[in-house]
Amino acid sequence: MNKQQLIDNIRRKQSFLCVGLDTDIKKIPDHLLDSHEPIFAFNRAIIDATADLCVAYKPNLAFYESLGVKGWQALEKTVRYIREQYPDQLVIADAKRGDIGNTSAMYAHALFEDLRADAVTVAPYMGEDSVTPFLGYEDKWVVLLALTSNKGSHDFQLTEDRDGERLFEKVLRRSQQWAGDDRMMYVVGATQGRMFEDIRRIAPNHFLLVPGVGAQGGSLEEVCRYGMTKECGLIVNSSRAIIYAAHDHAFADAARQAARQVQQQMAEQLKTIF
Amino acid sequence: MNKQQLIDNIRRKQSFLCVGLDTDIKKIPDHLLDSHEPIFAFNRAIIDATADLCVAYKPNLAFYESLGVKGWQALEKTVRYIREQYPDQLVIADAKRGDIGNTSAMYAHALFEDLRADAVTVAPYMGEDSVTPFLGYEDKWVVLLALTSNKGSHDFQLTEDRDGERLFEKVLRRSQQWAGDDRMMYVVGATQGRMFEDIRRIAPNHFLLVPGVGAQGGSLEEVCRYGMTKECGLIVNSSRAIIYAAHDHAFADAARQAARQVQQQMAEQLKTIF
Repeated sequence: MNKQQLIDNIRRKQSFLCVGLDTDIKKIPDHLLDSHEPIFAFNRAIIDATADLCVAYKPNLAFYESLGVKGWQALEKTVRYIREQYPDQLVIADAKRGDIGNTSAMYAHALFEDLRADAVTVAPYMGEDSVTPFLGYEDKWVVLLALTSNKGSHDFQLTEDRDGERLFEKVLRRSQQWAGDDRMMYVVGATQGRMFEDIRRIAPNHFLLVPGVGAQGGSLEEVCRYGMTKECGLIVNSSRAIIYAAHDHAFADAARQAARQVQQQMAEQLKTIF
Repeated sequence: MNKQQLIDNIRRKQSFLCVGLDTDIKKIPDHLLDSHEPIFAFNRAIIDATADLCVAYKPNLAFYESLGVKGWQALEKTVRYIREQYPDQLVIADAKRGDIGNTSAMYAHALFEDLRADAVTVAPYMGEDSVTPFLGYEDKWVVLLALTSNKGSHDFQLTEDRDGERLFEKVLRRSQQWAGDDRMMYVVGATQGRMFEDIRRIAPNHFLLVPGVGAQGGSLEEVCRYGMTKECGLIVNSSRAIIYAAHDHAFADAARQAARQVQQQMAEQLKTIF
């Protein structure tokens, strides 16, 4: 999916919601555990209930890897289902990969060609040649970690260099030499509120993938006030607040209601630009 | 495996070699492609040929993930084989993971409990709470990226803060508040030669996992001169130079010869401490 297609989807659906598929076998409704493929059954129900309200799905690979071979099967089947049933969805493999060149190339192959994700989250610590192997695919995206939403983001990401530039700012600035805003997005945690102003100074046009709204405490309004561009420029992720909105037979309906609530707030915000 | 057991193995085997299982279906001998499980067949032959010459195996997860479900099966089978046949080997899952706490906890579960690896490589960018979920397992190890062997290591890892401390030094120093040298090792690339002096100033007793000897151009002698401690303190990885020493029916013999050559150089170096 290219940038214009993403923007068109946001405009049409009045939504920049990404539903995070952090599907945990311990948290899905009991009645699904009897099914042949409980993880996929859960995901399919969530996807069918929310696809018209969101523009992206973000399976978190840890949750699938933790189930070994069965988890990978569920992940592959989930992505295939989205691809076939809802081809206008951006599929973000939340993998936070990043390794030496030949290894990153293997990950890129695994996630873009085999899994057929549109985007993958990448960690910047190892620098340019750990990221560029992910950038050689047309209409595929790197979502590079810049400023994350967790407490530990303070440990290194905010460290100032001799010129007063913080590490996340250096990541934003330096990585723009590797690709433009047609191939690169950044992870920016919503809990960092006004930091979006600083980020937009360096990356005025990039899409930002924003976790941390909802369960982690970030405010959608604040994110939009400081982070929205005239093309929207935001994909806001919500995982637990949507997929675990209820734990009984009505879980998919509850997920839909939770997603609709966020979508309506987003439509309100989009009025200012579209 | 705890630190003393690792040291004992190094002393007994006169080796601190780690064989990197970067097993690429495109590079293994043709005759194995007819077998039911070519990746596992290759790994088993390499392991049987080298187990008395090394103290660790390091499967690089990218190479297995790139094969999807079949790759995971091969990985699980490989680790199980090492566990059962060669229980004195340290199994390092080279995964370079690191995510928010609940996600890192899932990775830790996947790699330590399900896969039964002894150690996992972790990227430090997201800070303390992305690393600590891996530290709660007795006799299991985090191998944290500090100074990597690739060109891109210069992009961020060498950035000096206001006090002149470089990012990799800050990672070394800060992370010692999260665990001691009984749970934590560091990745330090051999191509960085004299940097080992700087690293030993901050982490005098930690084991360092050293990639980049051989194919990537690092010198074993230099690594030992600047990086070895009185407990050895080094695990030196070699992947391609060993596992792809030959591409014909004699690949396992060739791997053994290549491993033996490195082991003999290591025995020479160990004379100075044991």
